[in-house]
Amino acid sequence: MILASQSPRRREIFERAGFTFIVHAADIDESPLEHEAPPQMVERLARTKAHATVPFAREMGDNLIVAADTIVWSPDVGVLGKPSDDADALRMLTLLSGRTHFVTSGVSIIRIDGGSTIEHTFHETTDVTFHLVSDACLRAYVASGEPRDKAGAYAIQGRGAVLVKSIRGDYDNVVGLPLSRLVRELNVVCDDESDYVFDVLRG
Amino acid sequence: MILASQSPRRREIFERAGFTFIVHAADIDESPLEHEAPPQMVERLARTKAHATVPFAREMGDNLIVAADTIVWSPDVGVLGKPSDDADALRMLTLLSGRTHFVTSGVSIIRIDGGSTIEHTFHETTDVTFHLVSDACLRAYVASGEPRDKAGAYAIQGRGAVLVKSIRGDYDNVVGLPLSRLVRELNVVCDDESDYVFDVLRG
Repeated sequence: MILASQSPRRREIFERAGFTFIVHAADIDESPLEHEAPPQMVERLARTKAHATVPFAREMGDNLIVAADTIVWSPDVGVLGKPSDDADALRMLTLLSGRTHFVTSGVSIIRIDGGSTIEHTFHETTDVTFHLVSDACLRAYVASGEPRDKAGAYAIQGRGAVLVKSIRGDYDNVVGLPLSRLVRELNVVCDDESDYVFDVLRG
Repeated sequence: MILASQSPRRREIFERAGFTFIVHAADIDESPLEHEAPPQMVERLARTKAHATVPFAREMGDNLIVAADTIVWSPDVGVLGKPSDDADALRMLTLLSGRTHFVTSGVSIIRIDGGSTIEHTFHETTDVTFHLVSDACLRAYVASGEPRDKAGAYAIQGRGAVLVKSIRGDYDNVVGLPLSRLVRELNVVCDDESDYVFDVLRG
């Protein structure tokens, strides 16, 4: 299996699942399109990453690609990707403080079957509610460096957990990859070959 | 700070928070009382563990104790602690499959102030919904060994994540300690001394 993502968090989720995989970061244009809804945007980006990885997979003799893209968004706060700098991170965290937002991951699976490819793309959304957090606390968090390179400028799997009051949905989806849903979608794409739920649970 | 728990998961959550702490496992009778509601039971057990740790804390010159106890329960499945053996683990997982249950952690904080102690105890509940999972998958999971020593016979932070469809509430609470709530309750107990939210976020 090829994980078409350079995110260390996604790699950790794949490792925890016990998958045998190699990482290949797909370099694509991640600009949003006009009038594109967030779930459609992350599906498009995941699909583009997966398709861009097909030549590499053929070269490696691998027949399964998983790509993903995650954003933080809500009608209130707009779409938040990775912060451009610390000031941008503070802006994002200030927007999220005391509010509920959505984390949506788009995931695209491509199975290579000889000369043809089968693509299956879906998205998963988790609601995340932040505590109301003081400006001093948000600034301290930004200064810690953890918000860098994280969509929405926080890491729920890190010290950012104390910003979060509750979630509704899948936790790994907030980290960056909805593993529980993914293994079931892999069973759909790879029917009659493997039971990915069984394989993960067996360890 | 003293963590009065021998759970490796709780220790990891404390480490992630950056707390300076020592572990001291309190050896107490964990039998349930008759007609005791699950939230009251975990609060009582956490409180008993915390109080049992006071002499050790005094000996160590430490003035803050955190103890916790976690159970899995629902009106449908009853109260599930740690499985007694693999057959018991399979019984628990079969009960949980395809259903929503509650994970409740009781947490007790004791602050030692000279000769007196201030105790503050609370509980936090997270709803967890399992996928409907085949018997073969549940048996494979039991055979993997991961369910041993876990309340409800699963580890959401491990491969057991693929059993879980969604949660509602705090994730760390399902792992065994509601960190985000704990740091705020610590601020109540230790008023004017520290801001635990700030300290965790600062890193």
